[in-house]
Amino acid sequence: MRIAELSKTTGVAVATIKYYLREGLLPPGELTSPNQARYGAAHLSRLKLVRALVDVGGLSIAAVKDVLGALDDSEQPTFELLGVVQKAITKAEAVDAADPAHQVVKEFLTERGWWHSDENPAAQALARVLVTARELGHPKFAEKMLKPYADACERIATSDVAYVLDDLESEDLLEGVVVGTVLGDAAIVALRRLAQQVVSERRLGAAREG
Amino acid sequence: MRIAELSKTTGVAVATIKYYLREGLLPPGELTSPNQARYGAAHLSRLKLVRALVDVGGLSIAAVKDVLGALDDSEQPTFELLGVVQKAITKAEAVDAADPAHQVVKEFLTERGWWHSDENPAAQALARVLVTARELGHPKFAEKMLKPYADACERIATSDVAYVLDDLESEDLLEGVVVGTVLGDAAIVALRRLAQQVVSERRLGAAREG
Repeated sequence: MRIAELSKTTGVAVATIKYYLREGLLPPGELTSPNQARYGAAHLSRLKLVRALVDVGGLSIAAVKDVLGALDDSEQPTFELLGVVQKAITKAEAVDAADPAHQVVKEFLTERGWWHSDENPAAQALARVLVTARELGHPKFAEKMLKPYADACERIATSDVAYVLDDLESEDLLEGVVVGTVLGDAAIVALRRLAQQVVSERRLGAAREG
Repeated sequence: MRIAELSKTTGVAVATIKYYLREGLLPPGELTSPNQARYGAAHLSRLKLVRALVDVGGLSIAAVKDVLGALDDSEQPTFELLGVVQKAITKAEAVDAADPAHQVVKEFLTERGWWHSDENPAAQALARVLVTARELGHPKFAEKMLKPYADACERIATSDVAYVLDDLESEDLLEGVVVGTVLGDAAIVALRRLAQQVVSERRLGAAREG
């Protein structure tokens, strides 16, 4: 198909598709004349993936590039590539190495048997949350919330891993991890809002009746 | 303090602070001469909140404005303002009203007693996730994952509501909801990544031993 049709099918503007082509997020089309190219099913599915990562996942173009680079890399072992995609889809702004939040995160994760290393992007992201909570005057946030969140996340992760290992073909595994993680984040955030409404109504109702 | 000191204390560039002042995200400082102003503790805490919403929450400047407008509104009842902040901190790209994803979301939420309305931004966000899963070739995602995610989110929300109602002063309630929701999202996403690593290692280890 022509670029106009690719745009119509996906709802992505032609200018945006051209930008993705320049940035290498989409492979070049097959030239049919010096200034016209044809695009196929692979472009269509790649473009949908890029949009999901940007729109639903909120990933930067640089992070999308890292994800796609890993998906297209058939040389490295899956385990290595999993690390690359996990890093790309985890937004972590670095926290000063001397900040006590690192120690809180390390102790909490070690106690649960979840500690890997300081460089783990998710551990960095957690430290950033604790620093922000402290700066905003919520010093009890870590102490009160980390444990219930981690308990819930262990259940979530058990379902996530079962979905990837039991429901996907192994050649789709890496893309399945990316899609499942990004869509799962968005679904969990939305369901948390819905549950908060229900739980607070229930509690306020009980308080009125009691 | 001068703007330079506000910048130094928070790590936010002077140009960014000036932008926030122009956009009304920070109230004007007290003029000490025609082109110099002094800023106080209220500016400092407001600036930290803006940065948390932008950096950790990934909120747009427009969404931050809506949040701050609600926090500063002492006329409307808290319940109304809660709706405003929930909407502002929930990113939901609209899904075509005729899309079957709306019906899936409605049935799923109704069965749990969680249904409010089509306009609920979290219900919209959930429909967007289902549309994206379908377009990316993961049609089973909804069927497999919504229930375990919702179960986990009910536990998370119970802890969230307890934190806001039991641990915060009532005048801090609205800001507590904003901070708890935004920081909680980031903490949950990070802990989910950490749990996924642990659970998948455990499963692969068990497969090797078995």
